Amino acid sequence: MKKIAESTVRRLSLYLRYLEEFEKLGHDTISSGQLATSGGTTSAQVRKDLSFFGSFGKRGMGYSTRELTSRIRGILGLERTWRLVIVGAGKIGSALAGHRGFRDRGFEVVGIFDADPHRVGHTLLGVTIADVKSLERDVKRLRPDMAVLAVPPEAAPDVAARLATVGVKAILDFSTAPLHLPADVTVRRMNLALELEILSYALTNR
Amino acid sequence: MKKIAESTVRRLSLYLRYLEEFEKLGHDTISSGQLATSGGTTSAQVRKDLSFFGSFGKRGMGYSTRELTSRIRGILGLERTWRLVIVGAGKIGSALAGHRGFRDRGFEVVGIFDADPHRVGHTLLGVTIADVKSLERDVKRLRPDMAVLAVPPEAAPDVAARLATVGVKAILDFSTAPLHLPADVTVRRMNLALELEILSYALTNR
Repeated sequence: MKKIAESTVRRLSLYLRYLEEFEKLGHDTISSGQLATSGGTTSAQVRKDLSFFGSFGKRGMGYSTRELTSRIRGILGLERTWRLVIVGAGKIGSALAGHRGFRDRGFEVVGIFDADPHRVGHTLLGVTIADVKSLERDVKRLRPDMAVLAVPPEAAPDVAARLATVGVKAILDFSTAPLHLPADVTVRRMNLALELEILSYALTNR
Repeated sequence: MKKIAESTVRRLSLYLRYLEEFEKLGHDTISSGQLATSGGTTSAQVRKDLSFFGSFGKRGMGYSTRELTSRIRGILGLERTWRLVIVGAGKIGSALAGHRGFRDRGFEVVGIFDADPHRVGHTLLGVTIADVKSLERDVKRLRPDMAVLAVPPEAAPDVAARLATVGVKAILDFSTAPLHLPADVTVRRMNLALELEILSYALTNR
C-alpha cells in the first residue's frame, strides 16, 4: 500500500471515533457526509481518504459501519496491543499514566521511569516507578513498542537516544528539543506552543 | 505565497526554537544540517522548506540566524500578540493557563471560562474565571483571536459553535468530538490517543 499522508492518518483516527459511537447507537451504515462532519472536512475528502483502501461502500447507500471500522483499525494497526513506557512521572507523565482511554484503545503502560528518588518506588495505576538509571536494562526486559517522553526538555535528547539504543522505534515527545535519532525511529511531538503556532500561521495566511 | 503543508509549518516551528537557542549562544550562521537535526529531518528537506520563502542563505556559508529567525517568525505570524481564551478550567485548562511559555511567545490569555460554580470567580494567573454562560458577551468584549477548548468531550461541539458565532476563527481542541463549524474556522486537535494512533500507523506500515 502506498504511504498515507499524516493529515489523512489523523482524519482516519477521527473517523474511527465517530464510527465507534455510531456503531454503539446501532447504526449499520454511515454516509461520507456524516464522516466529513466528524473529521472537520468534506464528503469529497472522505471519499478520497477511503479510496486508499480500494473501493468499498455503495453509491447512495453509505458505508457499512462495521466493515469500515474494521478496515480503519487494520490500517492504523489497532488490532493488536501496543506496549508503552512513560519516562518522566511529573505532572504530564502522571496525568498520562492515569489516562482512561489508554488500555481501552490497546495501549498498555508496562513501565514508568523517573530520575527523582522521591518518585522512584511509588506506584502509578499498578505500575511501580523505576529509576531512569536502569532504563536500558528494564526496556530490554519489558520490550515496549513505544515510549512517551515527559521529561524536562534538557533531558529529552539523552533519554530518547538511550531508548533508541535498546530498540524503541516510536517516541511521543512532549518537548520540542532537537532529538538525534536513527532514521528508523518515528517521533511525534505533542506541544502546546507548536499547535498555537500552527493556528497563528493559519490566521496569518488565510 | 502558496499554501504551505502542515508538516512544513510544524518543522518551521521547530527550526525557530533551535534558531533562537543558537542566536542566544552568539552564533551568526547556521547550516541546513544543524537545522535538519532540530527538525528531525534531512538537509535536503530543510533547503526545500526554506525555499518557499525565496532564495537566501549562501551555498557553503549557512544561513544568517538573525535573518532566518525573522523570516520564520514573519511566516508563522509571530510578530504580533495573539489574544486567547481558555474554556474549561479543569486539570488541562489550569495547567495550560499556568504555562510559562505562553506570553513569551506572544500568546496572551485574556479570558478563562468554566461551567462549574465552584471554579467561577477564582483567579488563575491574574485572570478571573468567568461563567461559561456569559461566553458570547465576554468574547465580544475581549475579542480573542483563538480559543483553547479543554471542556469534556460532550460539551465541546456546543462551546465551539458558540465561539464561532461570535467570531473566533481558530480553536485548539483537546477532545476528538466532531465539531460542526463554518469552513473559515481552523481547528487543531491536541489529543494523546490521536498521536499514539499515528505512531501505531507508523510502526505497522514501516
